Amino acid sequence: MAVNIYDTANQLEREIRETEQFVTLQESFKAVQSDEEASAIFNEFRNVQQVLQQKQMTGQEITEEEAQQAQEISGKIGENEIISGLLEAEKQVGQMIDDINQVVLKPVRELYQ
Amino acid sequence: MAVNIYDTANQLEREIRETEQFVTLQESFKAVQSDEEASAIFNEFRNVQQVLQQKQMTGQEITEEEAQQAQEISGKIGENEIISGLLEAEKQVGQMIDDINQVVLKPVRELYQ
Repeated sequence: MAVNIYDTANQLEREIRETEQFVTLQESFKAVQSDEEASAIFNEFRNVQQVLQQKQMTGQEITEEEAQQAQEISGKIGENEIISGLLEAEKQVGQMIDDINQVVLKPVRELYQ
Repeated sequence: MAVNIYDTANQLEREIRETEQFVTLQESFKAVQSDEEASAIFNEFRNVQQVLQQKQMTGQEITEEEAQQAQEISGKIGENEIISGLLEAEKQVGQMIDDINQVVLKPVRELYQ
């Protein structure tokens, strides 16, 4: 990576930390961590999500029990405002990162069109 | 995306276009396009690659004929210096983009650690 590219990427990283989206994500994450119920549901959700993703990637079938577990945890999340807030904040940051990626990949995309 | 983030991402995009890696990729791509044999092999390679990737993603099995086709085209590519040059240039640009992504994703990665 050429030196100026590296500097600019680091500048971008510092600016990302200052965006409203990232600051909201930090606050939402702390809110979940400092609430016992939200934090338990969130950890359960992450575990279920990981199992399902791994199965999907390796082409394994999802059992009926796992599908039910996923549905239950989705229900709990929908009812918990602290977690819903974190998921929304994650979505906003994800969108921002996607936008950046689109810009960064533009030169290569244009070349192959 | 906040205005300064957008400006910095665009600056990064302009700088990417000026890197040795990207300029080499452009030249290698033109070299393949302006050579009839290389360009035919490259298009065949892309087609075979697309079929295999699509099958992998949808969990379909690759036929023996397709595996043989892939091996043949790999052989042809290894023997063609113009295409080997393009693949190497793609690898270098891919590495640069990966490096940038690592930097851009650092704030989120740190938060979840």
